[in-house]
Order: sequence, then structure tokens, then C-alpha cells
Amino acid sequence: MTDEIQSMFTIYHHPFSAASRFIRLMCAEYGIQADYIVEKPWERRDEFMLLNPAGTLPVAIENDGPALCGAMPIMEYIDETRGFMLGDRTLMPSHPEARAEVRRIIEWFLVKCDAEAVGYFVNEKLSKLEMPRDQGGGEPDSGILRVARTNMRHHMKYLGYLVATRDWIAGSRMTSADLAAAASLSCADYLGEVPWDEDEHVRNWYSRIKSRPSFRPLLSEKVLAMPPSPVYADLDF
Amino acid sequence: MTDEIQSMFTIYHHPFSAASRFIRLMCAEYGIQADYIVEKPWERRDEFMLLNPAGTLPVAIENDGPALCGAMPIMEYIDETRGFMLGDRTLMPSHPEARAEVRRIIEWFLVKCDAEAVGYFVNEKLSKLEMPRDQGGGEPDSGILRVARTNMRHHMKYLGYLVATRDWIAGSRMTSADLAAAASLSCADYLGEVPWDEDEHVRNWYSRIKSRPSFRPLLSEKVLAMPPSPVYADLDF
Repeated sequence: MTDEIQSMFTIYHHPFSAASRFIRLMCAEYGIQADYIVEKPWERRDEFMLLNPAGTLPVAIENDGPALCGAMPIMEYIDETRGFMLGDRTLMPSHPEARAEVRRIIEWFLVKCDAEAVGYFVNEKLSKLEMPRDQGGGEPDSGILRVARTNMRHHMKYLGYLVATRDWIAGSRMTSADLAAAASLSCADYLGEVPWDEDEHVRNWYSRIKSRPSFRPLLSEKVLAMPPSPVYADLDF
Repeated sequence: MTDEIQSMFTIYHHPFSAASRFIRLMCAEYGIQADYIVEKPWERRDEFMLLNPAGTLPVAIENDGPALCGAMPIMEYIDETRGFMLGDRTLMPSHPEARAEVRRIIEWFLVKCDAEAVGYFVNEKLSKLEMPRDQGGGEPDSGILRVARTNMRHHMKYLGYLVATRDWIAGSRMTSADLAAAASLSCADYLGEVPWDEDEHVRNWYSRIKSRPSFRPLLSEKVLAMPPSPVYADLDF
């Protein structure tokens, strides 16, 4: 054990932020111990806004270091400080072209797929239950959910194309792009919003990711007001 | 001269995409020769969509390599393949914490500031002139512009805070974060939408960036239907 492994991380996250889930998976895969603090970004808590003026999740702090803000900067930080310890099992390939592809796909799922589909499911079906009315709380909007479901099918098709033409989502090896896509899908899956019968390839790929030890804490988490869909924690869904 | 410097880049961009301008500045600073192809992303051209299924700019291709999609992946690619040649003048610091800060600020300007202010100015005042009505063209929406102007003042304040407390935007040295923020500001400046009298620190910082040779091609570019604001190309604005 080196000093790095024993150093302490504090991670501000929300259980249904795909970007937060991605960083939790990264930490588990890189052997990082962390204190997890649940943050409700819509509250715009003063102390949290001082850490990250953008008010977004996740935020990570190592020991007494500065706040590291955003999934992409944290992912790179983790790989830059711990990647060498994983040797062959590192989640970032070494060739610049392959690295660009990993980064492209992470952005696809954490930004585009979140803005077009998963973020809507989470907001309409979960966050609005937690939020006071004056902060945007209320009933799910069925029109928004309909649009999100249509978009989700497009994202499933694209994911299906990627994993059908490659072993993993960004190439022949598992990378952090697989974790980002799985983090995104797992949020939608909890809410029963993944059309699993659309694509056999996606299903097979997700079941490989889902059975990793790093995924277990996510699968055992439950929101009191909203139980997970029946297949959510099932490894043979 | 090494082989790398002589290799050829093709870059798909739009003159008023802040992310594209950022990559044009990166190329100029890293001594990269590139063929620039103007792409109108709202046309969703088949060949372009095959290069980048997200349909976003910029996209870069080195020689016969794969398409590199998105400002952040291209920035990292350029630094990973050329950073060593710049030695002390590299635009990415070496310490992981400092790298995270550079990445955070790039995202701030290319994603957040674009979504809240600069992207609205460009869309309302320029893109809608170029777009056919059925693709979203038409007159600028004064309500949207009003919101964007309010948001822009918040971004100017934050930028002012950053450059007043540091020499450059992400620390004591110029980094690619300065280029990203300047790329964003330059789009708004062309359209007369930067409230320069808000903050002296921002003005001084921008005039340092603006006088760099890498900035010249941006300053000499004009859109026929819309001349730049009087201070746009003025180095002593």
C-alpha cells in the first residue's frame, strides 16, 4: 500500500446524478477510499457554491487540496494520480487517438444523453418529488417524459452500434467510457426507463459492467419514495 | 522541424462557435498547420454526421486518422501529441490539481457560459440570419437577448474575480483555459455584447490575450451581414 491509496477523498454527489455515479465507479475501480456527502444541487447551499461556483456535481477533494469540480476533470485527476498503479487494468488507453475516443463517449453520455433523456427521467420522476414547489418541485410532466423516451431509444441504438462493433464501448478494452455510459443507464434503469428489449448487444454489455464489484453499492441503494424497477439489481435481467 | 509539425490537420469549425475558436487558438499556439472547413451544424450534413454523430463542432482529423470530436478531447489530443515541443510554454500545467482547474474553467466557458449567454447572442444575432426559417431562422428574440445580457454580467464578474486574484485565469501562467475564455468572449465581443466597463481586470487580461499572434486571424474575420463592434479588433480598446 502506498500513501496515495491511503489518502482520503471527500466526494459531493447525488445518488441520481449520472456524473456522480460515474465518479463513484471510478473511485471504486481505482481503489480510492472516499467519504461521500449527498448534495442537493438545487438548494444552492452557500458552502457548496463556494466549493463549486457552477453549483454542479460531482465535486471531489483529496485531503486538504482544492475542490476538483466536474466529472471530466475528476476522472482525469484520478487517472493522472492513480493510473500507473493499475498497470494493465488502467481505464484510460495510452494512445492519444484512443484517449480522444474515450473522452468523446464520456461527454456523449454525461452531457448529451443526460440533456436529452436521462436527466429528464431523473428530474421528472425523482428530483421533483424531493424539491419544494418554489424550487421546481411538483408532478412529473408526461409530455417531457414522452420526448425523453423517444430520445432514449436513439441513445440505445447508438450504444448498441458501439458495443456491437467493438468489444467495449470505446475499443477492445474496458475504459472509463464504459463506466460513464453504465452510470447514465443505471439512473434510467432504476426508474424503469431503459428499453432493454431494443438491443441484445446493449443488454450483454451492461450485464458485464453490472456484475463488477464497483457496481454493487449503486445497485443496493434505494430511494424511499421510489423503489427501483424489478430488473434494476438483477444480474441476469 | 519534426514530422509532427508537418503533419496535416483538417478542422471542421464555424467562425462563431466559441469551441471552434478555442481549437483554432490552440492550433496556432501549438504551431499546427490546419485546413479549416466551415460547417453549419444546423444543416446536419450526412458526411459531417458520419464524422461526429453528435453533430457538434469542432471536429479535427490528423492526416488519415479518426475524427476527434469536441473541444475538450481535441485540446487534450493536441497537448498530448505536441505539448512536449512547447517545453516551458506548454498551455497545460503539469500538476494534476492545476490541470483539473484548467479543465474546470474550459468547461465553464465553453459549456456553461455558452449555454447561458454567448450561445444565445450568436444564435439570436447571427445564426438565425443564416438559417432558413424551417431550421430555426428568423428575427432575434429580444426577451432571450435580455436574459443573456443579465447572465453575461454574472460571467464577467466571475472572470473578473479570477483574473484579479491570479495572474492568468487558472493560475500564475497562461494556459489553455485563457484561450477558452477569450474564445468565448471574442464571439460576444464581435456582436457588441461584452460589457467592457464592468471590470477593468477583465479588460486588461483580454487585451493581453488579444495581442497574441494566434488571435490575429480571428480579429480579421468578418461576417458580411454583420460588421464587428467598433472595439472588436482594436488592441487598445
